[in-house]
Amino acid sequence: MTFTTKATIASFGGKLYKLSHHSTTTTTPMAVNLYLPPQALSPTNPQRVPLLVYLSGLTCSPENCSEKGFLQARASQLGLAILYPDTSPRGLDLPGEAESWDFGLAAGFYVDATQAPWDRGYKMESYVARELLDAVFGDAELGARLDRARGVAVAGHSMGGHGALTLYLRHPGLFASVSAFAPIANPVACPWGQKAFRGYLGDDPEAWKEHDATELVRRWKGGDLKALVDVGLADGFYKQGQLLPENLEKAAKEAGVQGLTVRYHEDYDHSYYFVSTFAADHVDHAAKHLGLL
Amino acid sequence: MTFTTKATIASFGGKLYKLSHHSTTTTTPMAVNLYLPPQALSPTNPQRVPLLVYLSGLTCSPENCSEKGFLQARASQLGLAILYPDTSPRGLDLPGEAESWDFGLAAGFYVDATQAPWDRGYKMESYVARELLDAVFGDAELGARLDRARGVAVAGHSMGGHGALTLYLRHPGLFASVSAFAPIANPVACPWGQKAFRGYLGDDPEAWKEHDATELVRRWKGGDLKALVDVGLADGFYKQGQLLPENLEKAAKEAGVQGLTVRYHEDYDHSYYFVSTFAADHVDHAAKHLGLL
Repeated sequence: MTFTTKATIASFGGKLYKLSHHSTTTTTPMAVNLYLPPQALSPTNPQRVPLLVYLSGLTCSPENCSEKGFLQARASQLGLAILYPDTSPRGLDLPGEAESWDFGLAAGFYVDATQAPWDRGYKMESYVARELLDAVFGDAELGARLDRARGVAVAGHSMGGHGALTLYLRHPGLFASVSAFAPIANPVACPWGQKAFRGYLGDDPEAWKEHDATELVRRWKGGDLKALVDVGLADGFYKQGQLLPENLEKAAKEAGVQGLTVRYHEDYDHSYYFVSTFAADHVDHAAKHLGLL
Repeated sequence: MTFTTKATIASFGGKLYKLSHHSTTTTTPMAVNLYLPPQALSPTNPQRVPLLVYLSGLTCSPENCSEKGFLQARASQLGLAILYPDTSPRGLDLPGEAESWDFGLAAGFYVDATQAPWDRGYKMESYVARELLDAVFGDAELGARLDRARGVAVAGHSMGGHGALTLYLRHPGLFASVSAFAPIANPVACPWGQKAFRGYLGDDPEAWKEHDATELVRRWKGGDLKALVDVGLADGFYKQGQLLPENLEKAAKEAGVQGLTVRYHEDYDHSYYFVSTFAADHVDHAAKHLGLL
C-alpha cells in the first residue's frame, strides 16, 4: 500500500489510521490521519464513503484535531471519512525553519512556495490538492473504502480555514463544499498572512492575492459558494485583526457572490473548544453537499 | 469566591471554568476545571444543575479530559455540570515525587497516604470526596449554579476509574451512581496498584484492600450498585493485567451484588479515543440516576 500504517485506533465505531507516506511534492515523509466511519468498515455490507479533508492551523499536526475536534462523532453517524493532513513538510532542516511558530514548520499556509529556500519542499497546496488526494483515493486498501465520485469536501481551522477557502476557490470543482472555523480570511491584510506570503511568495503583493480568500472571491465565477464560516467573538486572534471575516463577507457581497454563511458566536475563542462545539455543523454542511443528508 | 478563575472558555453552549484554590487537605494550590452547561447559565431562566465528578488517570491534569473526553457534548444537552479534579497535589516537592509516571505526581490514586513523606499532602480521597465537593457547592458564585440535593455522580478513567469505584463504594450515599472507563478494578492484584499502595499505604495488604473495588464489593451492603464499566479489548493495559475487570465482576457475582454492568468493546484501546466514544453513555448513566433522563 502507498501508506505505512503507524497505528489503527478505534473511534466512534470506526477507525482512525495514523499513516505516513513519502511525498514527492514536499520531498519528505508526511504524516496524515484518515478516519473511516463504521459504514466503510462493515464486514458484511461495506459502503464506499465520501471524504472530508480537514486542514489544521498553525502549530498543529494531524493529531490535534483527530483528538480534540470531535468531527468523528458526527461523521460516524453519517458515513463520512475524514482526512487530516499535516501543516507543513517536516525534516527538510531549512535554515530558520523552526524559528517562528507562525512560519516554517507547522505553518505551511497551504501555498506552493516560490522563494528559496522554501521552494525546496514547502508545496502544501500541490501536496494536499493533488498528491495526497490522489494517493488516498488510489490506495488499494484505504482508497477502496472511499468513493471519489461521491465527492470531497474541505474544511479547516485558522490557517487551515484559509487553506480550505483558498483551495476551494482556486480549484473549482475539486471540492463539493467548504467550511472554516476562524479562518484567516484576508491574509494579505493581516500580520500572519503578510509574514507568510512574503516568506513563501516574495515581495509582490499581486502574487499574494492569488492565495487570499477575500481577493479570490471578488473574481469568483463558479456560481453559488457552498461555504460555511464560524467565528468566535472572544477569539483573541479575531480581535487582533488576524482573521478579518468581515472582509470576506463584504467582498462576496460586492461581487454578488451568494452562498457564503458567516456566523459569529459570542464568548467562543480560537481553541478546539470552539471547533468541537461546532464540529457537527461542519460535518453536516459537508454531508449535505456530498449527498449524505 | 473560594476559587480563582484562570480562564473561562465557551464549550457546547456552556462554560468551562479553569479554577485554582488552596487546599488545606493537600496543603497545596489545586487546579480544577468545572463545566457548567447552558441550562445553569441562562440569563433569563437559570436552573441549578446536578454534578458529575470525573476523575482522570495517570499522568493527567484537569485539562486532558476537558479537551479530549467529549463529556461536555452530552452534558450540555441534558443540563449536567462536570467537575474535573487534578490527579495529585503539585508543588510539595517531595523526594522522588517526579521519578515515576505511575507514582507521585499525577498519580495520587485517590487514597489518603499514611506513609511518610506522602502523608504530608497526598490525601486525594479526602480532597475530592470532602474538601473539593464542599468548596464547589459552597462557592457563592459557582455553587449557586449547582444543586447538591439533585445529586452527585462520579466517573473516571483508568486510575480515575479505580478512584470513582472506590470512592463510590467507600462513601455510601455520597454518589448517586458510578461509571468507569478501563478502571484499575483490582489494584491489590496488579503492578500499578501494588506499587502505589505500598508507597502510600505501607506493606500491609489488608490496608490496601480498603481501597480496592473488587475487595470492597465483596462486603458491599448498599443494595444494587448503580455502576457502568467500559473496557476496550485492544487496551494494552487490560491485556497486561493492570485492569482486571473480570475480578470485579466475579466478586460482585459471588457476593450477590446486583447492578454492575461491564461492557467489553472490541478494538478499543486505553486512550481518549475510547473515552470520547463512550462518553455520552457515561453521561447518560449519571443523568439517569440524577433524574435528568
